[in-house]
Amino acid sequence: MDSQRLGNELKKILPPGRVLTSSLERKMYSYDSSFHARFRSFVPDAVTLPRSTAEVAEIMRFASNNNIPVVPRGAGSGETCGCLAVRGGIVLDLSGWDTIEEVDAANMQVIVRPGVVHYILNEHLAGFGLFFPPDPGSTRMCTIGGMVANNSSGLRAVKYGTTEQYVLGLEVVLPDGRVITTGGTNCRALKNVSGLNLTKLFVGSEGTLGVITRIRLRVWPRPRARGIVMAVFGSLDEAPAAVLDVYQSGILPSGIEILDSSAIQAVNMYKPEINLPAAEAILLFEVDGNPAGVEWEGQKIVEITGKRALSVEWATDSQRMADLWRGRGVVAVAAARLRPDGSRIFAGEDISVPLSRVTEALRRIKELGREFGVAVVNYGHIGDGNVHTAPVINLENSDEVARANGLVDAIHRLAIELHGSTTGEHGVGAVRNQYALAEHGEAVNVMKRLKETLDPGNIMNPGKLLPPGEE
Amino acid sequence: MDSQRLGNELKKILPPGRVLTSSLERKMYSYDSSFHARFRSFVPDAVTLPRSTAEVAEIMRFASNNNIPVVPRGAGSGETCGCLAVRGGIVLDLSGWDTIEEVDAANMQVIVRPGVVHYILNEHLAGFGLFFPPDPGSTRMCTIGGMVANNSSGLRAVKYGTTEQYVLGLEVVLPDGRVITTGGTNCRALKNVSGLNLTKLFVGSEGTLGVITRIRLRVWPRPRARGIVMAVFGSLDEAPAAVLDVYQSGILPSGIEILDSSAIQAVNMYKPEINLPAAEAILLFEVDGNPAGVEWEGQKIVEITGKRALSVEWATDSQRMADLWRGRGVVAVAAARLRPDGSRIFAGEDISVPLSRVTEALRRIKELGREFGVAVVNYGHIGDGNVHTAPVINLENSDEVARANGLVDAIHRLAIELHGSTTGEHGVGAVRNQYALAEHGEAVNVMKRLKETLDPGNIMNPGKLLPPGEE
Repeated sequence: MDSQRLGNELKKILPPGRVLTSSLERKMYSYDSSFHARFRSFVPDAVTLPRSTAEVAEIMRFASNNNIPVVPRGAGSGETCGCLAVRGGIVLDLSGWDTIEEVDAANMQVIVRPGVVHYILNEHLAGFGLFFPPDPGSTRMCTIGGMVANNSSGLRAVKYGTTEQYVLGLEVVLPDGRVITTGGTNCRALKNVSGLNLTKLFVGSEGTLGVITRIRLRVWPRPRARGIVMAVFGSLDEAPAAVLDVYQSGILPSGIEILDSSAIQAVNMYKPEINLPAAEAILLFEVDGNPAGVEWEGQKIVEITGKRALSVEWATDSQRMADLWRGRGVVAVAAARLRPDGSRIFAGEDISVPLSRVTEALRRIKELGREFGVAVVNYGHIGDGNVHTAPVINLENSDEVARANGLVDAIHRLAIELHGSTTGEHGVGAVRNQYALAEHGEAVNVMKRLKETLDPGNIMNPGKLLPPGEE
Repeated sequence: MDSQRLGNELKKILPPGRVLTSSLERKMYSYDSSFHARFRSFVPDAVTLPRSTAEVAEIMRFASNNNIPVVPRGAGSGETCGCLAVRGGIVLDLSGWDTIEEVDAANMQVIVRPGVVHYILNEHLAGFGLFFPPDPGSTRMCTIGGMVANNSSGLRAVKYGTTEQYVLGLEVVLPDGRVITTGGTNCRALKNVSGLNLTKLFVGSEGTLGVITRIRLRVWPRPRARGIVMAVFGSLDEAPAAVLDVYQSGILPSGIEILDSSAIQAVNMYKPEINLPAAEAILLFEVDGNPAGVEWEGQKIVEITGKRALSVEWATDSQRMADLWRGRGVVAVAAARLRPDGSRIFAGEDISVPLSRVTEALRRIKELGREFGVAVVNYGHIGDGNVHTAPVINLENSDEVARANGLVDAIHRLAIELHGSTTGEHGVGAVRNQYALAEHGEAVNVMKRLKETLDPGNIMNPGKLLPPGEE
């Protein structure tokens, strides 16, 4: 169906203003934040802006009857082409469907539509003394629907886990337009083990099984105190060793971040006034909880890491915490400024490895950077082995682009070799599905059979998650 | 296939000593801890005791080729007939396959075979300063395999969530004998969002999709301090209100338990020396963490609950904590002693309701008890709305048994009416599947399609989880 005719059909379902068909409008939906999307043109045939479950259901029935791919999209902040129409079709832009339907404070939960922005939700919950703990770096952009579809996490997964842990139930429009509610049709309980756990199957399924149209999240009491420890290490090996020492003391910090020497250099070049100590590694521990407990844990972390570190500092004063955090805060931007003609690319940016292999991963990524002739900056969530690598290249230079692609492939293979995963939090999309078999073996066949069962026409976000051409 | 021939076939796969076929042996596998099983005779045709994945795979291939039901079983401590051969076939007794394969302390995880007992695992992990947080009442009996199959939890789900939160990966033998590893074939990372989340689909699937043969669990640093607050209330309504006050102060206790007046009376009749105050409700808050934080939270809970309670006490001394906990510890046994000819039955014992409906649930369960002429004792995990009801009847009296069945049905319907679930932690099995449609509506059809996809011959634990006769 050509774009014009498709648009006309969709305008029978939605008001004309919520169906976009012009070439320019469609082109605006051809990218996300990934490296891959810069070199491809994934222009959808039409974009729709549904605002109700009934509208989504009608679009799905239409798409199903006509065998047209459908791609749900939130803020487009993903790094994997997950929200791009790699096989054409209809994009569902859900970012404007951003109603916080109910804060059910008495039952410690909140009901939202998919387009609610993470930051907005937490601002709103703060008024009730509550919060939704997962804490992605893209908080000011990313939507809750996108977080659920990708099982997002971020800085605080060490203590608070990932998005899935908070999803109590979902309303989902299936590919054929039927609507189900997972976690109990009318349930507001916090615990429910009745039935197969469809909720968690849809979480992280990246839009390949259905469209998430309503989300019931468990929320937690907002901790009243917070503190930061910065520990500076003369040897890279000491950093993960210090992390383990802290765990073994019985402390579970809310986050543990690392900047390696490449990241420290990048930050200091970008903002000399931050003046991070020239070292092999810096760890930042965040602890949260009640004031007395936070103080106790901070002091304990100082004592423990002090045995390995060149210097340690503990802060609970908000200004000083912000100062200590500043290097971590700017590292992603700093990476992009490593060289005047350079851009930081989002690819190979998200591997996870076992804690015991973090040092090795950081060393080998540096080596790979040298081998491929690509500058890399490493930082990330060391507390759960989630390494963020930022390759920096000149995007105009096709040779550099080719070498970057080689580097990224090598980083993904390294993750698997080190008994990790190609993606700790950003997802698979169309950029890591080629590794699905290497990561999951025979389990991939089960994933494929589940996908075929729920989406026999393969119209839900085709070309993603499962091995290319096999889904 | 008759029992004798079946046994002979199975003895080609397993050593004869690990295939049980005598009438007495098979009868020993005809019950679990449920009320329902007392009145039915679910004798399997054969019992096997596999000790390797290869053995399980071979049994599954045989069963699949011959269309024979297979029922995995752990300790048999369940309350739902989940491990019983309600349609005959082969029971896989996995309780003796209890190897702790590896404590990977450096990566904060442990690898176990399904028969490891919960208590044994935590004793072993304590040596590494680690623990597996879910805390079922049956800790000294129940197996990790059973906990994963049922997504078990217990006292500490308020803060620590349920079993699923800790399952990083599973080895599963599918109905056709193929073996998959979920969560990454060789993965030891803590975070991994690659692929569909098969792990969480198998968790809580109650043996209806495959046989869990190896479990990779995330474990946590063992908290170093613990304390108990006991608060006594003159009005039932004040108890859940106090729970909400505590949450709103930013505190998340590790557990919050309630004894209502029926439970208090039962405890005092059973053990007069415990001498619980005659009141409408007693709350027990457990807090854990670091010593300073625990003290702070205990004092704060005393201050907060003191505004509503008749009396409050805070203890961190282990003897005094044990004293305060004693009433909660004996309530299940005390219920059984309410009357000399009475037995506590496990049925309707596990509903969950929204926190805001806990008082109403407790009141209406008492009313239902009067209506059906059955004594009930109520206690449970109020912190997450998981109410434990203990009906006490004379099992020899068929009229009482009939009235108890009526009561239990009414309790399950009440849970759904109050926007809760028929089961907060014990599962569905063959005793709550009749409510699946009322709880899940159209989503049941999706569950059925997933079941058909993974188990087309319906040999994996048939007659469970899905609506009777429809699975």
